[in-house]
Amino acid sequence: MPNHNKLDRRAFLNRTALGGAAATAGTVLAAPAIAQEMPQINWRMVSSFPTSLDTIYGGGEQIADRLRETTDGKFDIQVFAAGELVPGLEAISSVTDGTVECAHSVGYYNWGKDPAFAPGADLPFLLSARAKAAYNYYGGGIELYNEFLAQYGLVSFPGGNSGVQMGGWFRKEINTLDDLKGLKMRIGGLAGMVLERLGVVPQQIAGGDVYASLEKGTIDAAEWIGPYDDAKLGFQKVAPYYYYPGFWEGGPTVGFFIGKEHWDALPATYQALVRNCTQATDMAMVAKYDYVNPPALKQLIGDGAQLRAFSEPVLSAAFDAALQVYDEISAENEWFKRQWEAVQPYRDDWYLYAQTSEYTFDTFMMIQQRQGKLTPSGG
Amino acid sequence: MPNHNKLDRRAFLNRTALGGAAATAGTVLAAPAIAQEMPQINWRMVSSFPTSLDTIYGGGEQIADRLRETTDGKFDIQVFAAGELVPGLEAISSVTDGTVECAHSVGYYNWGKDPAFAPGADLPFLLSARAKAAYNYYGGGIELYNEFLAQYGLVSFPGGNSGVQMGGWFRKEINTLDDLKGLKMRIGGLAGMVLERLGVVPQQIAGGDVYASLEKGTIDAAEWIGPYDDAKLGFQKVAPYYYYPGFWEGGPTVGFFIGKEHWDALPATYQALVRNCTQATDMAMVAKYDYVNPPALKQLIGDGAQLRAFSEPVLSAAFDAALQVYDEISAENEWFKRQWEAVQPYRDDWYLYAQTSEYTFDTFMMIQQRQGKLTPSGG
Repeated sequence: MPNHNKLDRRAFLNRTALGGAAATAGTVLAAPAIAQEMPQINWRMVSSFPTSLDTIYGGGEQIADRLRETTDGKFDIQVFAAGELVPGLEAISSVTDGTVECAHSVGYYNWGKDPAFAPGADLPFLLSARAKAAYNYYGGGIELYNEFLAQYGLVSFPGGNSGVQMGGWFRKEINTLDDLKGLKMRIGGLAGMVLERLGVVPQQIAGGDVYASLEKGTIDAAEWIGPYDDAKLGFQKVAPYYYYPGFWEGGPTVGFFIGKEHWDALPATYQALVRNCTQATDMAMVAKYDYVNPPALKQLIGDGAQLRAFSEPVLSAAFDAALQVYDEISAENEWFKRQWEAVQPYRDDWYLYAQTSEYTFDTFMMIQQRQGKLTPSGG
Repeated sequence: MPNHNKLDRRAFLNRTALGGAAATAGTVLAAPAIAQEMPQINWRMVSSFPTSLDTIYGGGEQIADRLRETTDGKFDIQVFAAGELVPGLEAISSVTDGTVECAHSVGYYNWGKDPAFAPGADLPFLLSARAKAAYNYYGGGIELYNEFLAQYGLVSFPGGNSGVQMGGWFRKEINTLDDLKGLKMRIGGLAGMVLERLGVVPQQIAGGDVYASLEKGTIDAAEWIGPYDDAKLGFQKVAPYYYYPGFWEGGPTVGFFIGKEHWDALPATYQALVRNCTQATDMAMVAKYDYVNPPALKQLIGDGAQLRAFSEPVLSAAFDAALQVYDEISAENEWFKRQWEAVQPYRDDWYLYAQTSEYTFDTFMMIQQRQGKLTPSGG
């Protein structure tokens, strides 16, 4: 990073006058407090997640906490876990239909209602979390998604990301494309549609039943989230092969969805607060996952998980299938098409650019890690 | 990601009562506005950057804008570019000495005063931006840095990151370690100290003089930032070899430094605002760089820049030299040692974990990019 040590003439002149003034200009003025309208707002937020998934559920709590702390409690949102007020998958719909004011959810949960809900959350083989943020905040991603959402009476801001998820737990190894034929896997949405073209038989199974289904062999595989959340359920005991990457979720955006009429009625300062508090949460959730996943992965391996990478033929076939699926949906759904076409130029540019500094720095550091050169010097 | 479609009994019971209540419970209550003390605060922020570096300088402006928007102008910070009030490199010191209330700068600019300022910003071969955020927000990085900063009357929060920077511009190719011997390179701080051990002769040259120095051959190489900022200066015309990665800056944290007595005097809501607005800016700066760097790199290549990767022997020698430097500084500086030792366990864990989903997802996507498979379907 460059140094900027130049001081221009004006600066020197200004500076001489500073010494005395500085001590009094700053900090809190004792001047009369200004009476300020900060309306009391009481909202309810439904989360699509159970409290046991503390990081992703915690994102909704974080948004509420941040709004409360920055308004001295005036902007108060009560958070309900999945199932407390409405089922997790109905969180977004419950904002559209006016049951609650806001939701913390993932757009693709509404994929069955309208596939165009998905691109604002994630698509298989889309972008990693960092590139997703770049596209969302500077590439027009947030604006375009909100254009689409308006017809459902919704406004949404990114409010969390898990990073690249794991590919899930398998009872047997997947070496070739043939190993996927007839494989019963708990996986939903677009990802299920993509894997179906490779012969997988997608299964819809409630979270609480996944372990037992794997144990009994009712299903052969199940995707969940990543090491930290997966470790809580002990999948390695019944389906020890732990595959990566979860190519269907490279950087899923967890959204804060607000009823448009509630958003429009907010004072400008509260709207600015929502933008800031959700963006801070968006970064904080990735940061927390990035902090808790590494030790959890080590623990899982210690507990018997067998790490496996999907082979190149599997990834390539899934990539081609995904493109087909996007083409077919695009032919039928204008809003899906617009979003899918809008993100592609940046995706191409990013994965060219990332090959330089980002990738070589990380690769070099990983090589050092494998050689034991990152072992703490104190230990 | 799992689906959570369970609805418990309590939820059903609650839900039946919701329909009517929801329409009135939400949005802004027309109830009397509560008079609320929001003190007027007027601070000055000095940036270490010139306005021409709009993204990194813009981070300081963003923090000020966000605080203004969320307080209806009550928390008002005027931002001064490098050199307007104080020289860029003196930004942090000018907070310590009470000249201004706050600064937007990089801790390692104060490295000469105390090497322990560096780890809170960046060290060669430390962490990428995402892992840095994880360590900062969840690994105790922010707290530890602030423990150190207290003795300088400072409080600091991350307020920006550039991502992995480029390795800079070279007049000739660097193929072997011998090519570094006697190489006059504009590079400062700890990075200069590390490269010096490889035979490089570090040069301190003001930003405005770098181009002319490269053109005349007064220096052989210069590091700057990344494609977007570098493109403004046209270095490719005089030093066409553009190296990566900038291993001395894997994820430099740009900090928002506040005079501790000013911080302590802030109301709790304003402190919460500072935390939220800086964290949002921390993520926004990476996002912006990640959005503007990719097209800038393509443009630079079109304009004649020759992309080159540092060879493995160069990176390895620099890595070993960095470890030596850290050991030597640690032997003399307790606060440097504490910070360096604190970050190492997470660094080791992260670069093990990142080898799974994150790395394989990105690698696969980069392969698709090279094969032209990310070319926009519309184009």
